[in-house]
Amino acid sequence: MGAPSDDEFGLIARCFAPLAIDPAARGLKDDAAVWTLTGPTVMTCDAIVEGVHFLPDDPIAMIAQKALRVNLSDLAAKAARPDGVLISLIWPRTRKTAEIEGFAEGLEADLAAWRFRLLGGDLTSTDGPLTISVMAFGALLGERCPARADAKPGEDVWVSGTIGDAALGLKLRLGEFAGLNEADAAFLIDRYRLPQPRLSLAGLVAQEAGASMDVSDGLIADAGKVAAASGVRVQLNPALVLLSPPARRAVEQGLAPLETLLCGGDDYEVLFTASPEHRAAIAAAAAQCGVALTRIGAVAEGAGVSAVLPDGRDLGSDRKGYVHRIGAR
Amino acid sequence: MGAPSDDEFGLIARCFAPLAIDPAARGLKDDAAVWTLTGPTVMTCDAIVEGVHFLPDDPIAMIAQKALRVNLSDLAAKAARPDGVLISLIWPRTRKTAEIEGFAEGLEADLAAWRFRLLGGDLTSTDGPLTISVMAFGALLGERCPARADAKPGEDVWVSGTIGDAALGLKLRLGEFAGLNEADAAFLIDRYRLPQPRLSLAGLVAQEAGASMDVSDGLIADAGKVAAASGVRVQLNPALVLLSPPARRAVEQGLAPLETLLCGGDDYEVLFTASPEHRAAIAAAAAQCGVALTRIGAVAEGAGVSAVLPDGRDLGSDRKGYVHRIGAR
Repeated sequence: MGAPSDDEFGLIARCFAPLAIDPAARGLKDDAAVWTLTGPTVMTCDAIVEGVHFLPDDPIAMIAQKALRVNLSDLAAKAARPDGVLISLIWPRTRKTAEIEGFAEGLEADLAAWRFRLLGGDLTSTDGPLTISVMAFGALLGERCPARADAKPGEDVWVSGTIGDAALGLKLRLGEFAGLNEADAAFLIDRYRLPQPRLSLAGLVAQEAGASMDVSDGLIADAGKVAAASGVRVQLNPALVLLSPPARRAVEQGLAPLETLLCGGDDYEVLFTASPEHRAAIAAAAAQCGVALTRIGAVAEGAGVSAVLPDGRDLGSDRKGYVHRIGAR
Repeated sequence: MGAPSDDEFGLIARCFAPLAIDPAARGLKDDAAVWTLTGPTVMTCDAIVEGVHFLPDDPIAMIAQKALRVNLSDLAAKAARPDGVLISLIWPRTRKTAEIEGFAEGLEADLAAWRFRLLGGDLTSTDGPLTISVMAFGALLGERCPARADAKPGEDVWVSGTIGDAALGLKLRLGEFAGLNEADAAFLIDRYRLPQPRLSLAGLVAQEAGASMDVSDGLIADAGKVAAASGVRVQLNPALVLLSPPARRAVEQGLAPLETLLCGGDDYEVLFTASPEHRAAIAAAAAQCGVALTRIGAVAEGAGVSAVLPDGRDLGSDRKGYVHRIGAR
């Protein structure tokens, strides 16, 4: 139809079709993709919105990567490998069309890094903020998909990576705290912008996890979801939670309370429970995966979360965490 | 965590979890759904945005249904049955939270009508317009999924239902045309608000179609996509295109030119090509499905679309249709 290059179809053909290399995507030239899968498939859907999940001046390639990675993080926590993704890109009328190329570059890098197939999507304009909705799916690696509801009293509680970096990174970006050296600040901001989905742990989660979920709304709040879904009490020891060196320095220098780290969002780490008998096996497997895994607590009979700070306050009874209010009264 | 009922989790639990009756959805209480796929699966993803695809004061239940139905229309055109859906609901901070219940009611009615399973989603707030992004999938009914690229010279061109109703309905809603009686206006507006996905035709499409797609950006523009993808010329006869009685009256009374109907968007009908040898079988099958199917043209060697009006103008050479400009320069 001789479409100009910055209409919906021209942009899809120019920026996104080259990324859709799997034949199932039909070159993004059809109404739908045709994927042939057999067996249990994990499906997840998460959107990120400018001003809510990222900031307007975050680098556009990183925004694309964050949209993808928050979904990959769910697949990792559910013991699945990433297979395919569909992306709905809602682009502001006021944001330069040329930036879509940078968005596609970020996407391409991540698709390649995880051998993840772009299968389809949608490109629409909006008078509102940049909004990216992603649907990701992948084959289950083991025989079961660990639920939030699968925790049992007596199990250990493990978490991957380091906790609280992204919460501090966001505060830095918002000008809500300062005083760190430049390298530490850059590290924490990067952790806010670019989640590290723990896909290398998906096999271990498949083999060892009782309950499992990804930590995105704050460690304490998300541990509370496991407790509620499983009908158990989750007892965490804040002193055991692994902090990155920059985050530890921020706490030690009195720049941020430990509470901010344990209750802040955007960690995108894996929280799971497992039998104490498998501690050695889990530690060995984690070392092989190159991802830190830390035992931070235990599952008990009861309800709710406990996480007692050195000053005696129990974060679990404070009901902290990211609560996302929707709409107007 | 004792969340108030109008936060993200409270709303999901109250309004959407009761709709997610398939065990694969895990009651919308987990990070992901686990669906067992068998064989080729058609996957599609389409978003609708307030002010672009619907109007702010459209009834909220119908907005939910439109979001679902534009995706179901893709499944029908690709010869798939609907299996599951994931919905990303981006809700304006300024829109009443209570309306989410109406949204869920619309969704529930359509899920039941097509035995379609809600498997997951996401609920997020925005400073922008209401935005609904849907990912739908379903099993392929036949052995192949008809592509836009599958048209061959010598085939007939068929289209379902009536064309142009939604284009007139939108113009009525925008106050861009008037003069119809109340019942006709209501019919056309309803056709704009509530697409009728032709899922009853999916089996016929599986059996008979060469190329197939759903008509959403205007009959002429979408026929052009089949022509471009297939490397053929699509010759349409505008006089053969079936109009609804209200649309026909609008044209006959000189209230709207036929061009508006053939080039306007939002029809959500199925356009497909088929061998002339199967005309009788197709007509018989259509009658059984209770959906009008009209033969409106033929596929020929060449390129582009022709659609010659009584006054001699060829709509195909005018490059009309809905072109969706994205972003700013």
